[in-house]
Amino acid sequence: MSDTLSIALFSGTADKLHAAATIAAGAAALDRPVNILLQYWALDAFRLDRIEADLGVAYDGTAEGSTPPVKGTAKIPWLETFRMAKELGSVTIHACSGSLEVLGLDAGELDPIVDDSAGIATFLMAAEDGQILFI
Amino acid sequence: MSDTLSIALFSGTADKLHAAATIAAGAAALDRPVNILLQYWALDAFRLDRIEADLGVAYDGTAEGSTPPVKGTAKIPWLETFRMAKELGSVTIHACSGSLEVLGLDAGELDPIVDDSAGIATFLMAAEDGQILFI
Amino acid sequence: MSDTLSIALFSGTADKLHAAATIAAGAAALDRPVNILLQYWALDAFRLDRIEADLGVAYDGTAEGSTPPVKGTAKIPWLETFRMAKELGSVTIHACSGSLEVLGLDAGELDPIVDDSAGIATFLMAAEDGQILFI
Repeated sequence: MSDTLSIALFSGTADKLHAAATIAAGAAALDRPVNILLQYWALDAFRLDRIEADLGVAYDGTAEGSTPPVKGTAKIPWLETFRMAKELGSVTIHACSGSLEVLGLDAGELDPIVDDSAGIATFLMAAEDGQILFI
Repeated sequence: MSDTLSIALFSGTADKLHAAATIAAGAAALDRPVNILLQYWALDAFRLDRIEADLGVAYDGTAEGSTPPVKGTAKIPWLETFRMAKELGSVTIHACSGSLEVLGLDAGELDPIVDDSAGIATFLMAAEDGQILFI
Repeated sequence: MSDTLSIALFSGTADKLHAAATIAAGAAALDRPVNILLQYWALDAFRLDRIEADLGVAYDGTAEGSTPPVKGTAKIPWLETFRMAKELGSVTIHACSGSLEVLGLDAGELDPIVDDSAGIATFLMAAEDGQILFI
């Protein structure tokens, strides 16, 4: 089971980032290379000046009438889980170059856990023969 | 076409649960094994004490300015579609053990349509050589 | 790298539609066939009478406490990017027949960029041996 697991990571709420990080950590523990492309709100979440911000939870957890058991996000250790995933195996995190442009960000404004920037085509080529998730 | 179709099911709104269930039913009808892991809000949706609750629709359908043709969720038969998928083929539904812990739930509090609990690594191993969706 | 890239496109906000379109364009540029199934809110977004509407951005970008750098959606060229993807390679866009029924729509009410309508099983068969994303 050495196929690459790729994640096009779009969402920037703490719960979805945590879900992505746990899946990345699980794949890394199974010796699978993990290839992550940060787009839009997920990219925004890795901005150095917001890396400790409260990112909230997905709309599922806040819609009227819902009674979600998870209230806050202070206890959702999404960034720590990404760090752990990197320690467990080969996990590379790329900033999507197109999203950098849309958000008006420079790669230098991101947390150093982000390895580099890359385009969609580079991401898809690295994903070849493996599985891709959009989160 | 016998490869496993795996779904990391995170969202708990009625429309996304229904989309997941219809995809599961379609794969089961094609004789593909279906492997579902319930995380966060999807796991919450399968709580026995909320299984009949109105789960709302995704933010896409409620954002200001939108005029979605689907207003309520009473008519979205997501649970019935999961039941039908199970009748059509080999569909197994696992509660994510990590999410059970985050939500403070016990597997015994879930609807019996949930088969058991499992970790991410077990889920990924069962997904080997197949396709994975994150919903 | 000639495997089909399939997208079950559910979300109807401008940012997620744009992410889907850029992934489709990237795959088409790599000579991969792209197979898209429009469900629920994504299907609603392709209605001829709403094709120019402001579709908003995902909840991640509007949640209380967030400070997203992308404010409006007027500049998110999701439809133009889908058109470009079609020019780059083999990209087919199907309206999900089940979603047409749920939304009470006829395929004739959709923008002509939508090629035809298809069921889940047809979509899954076309996705065989390739990768599938749910967006």
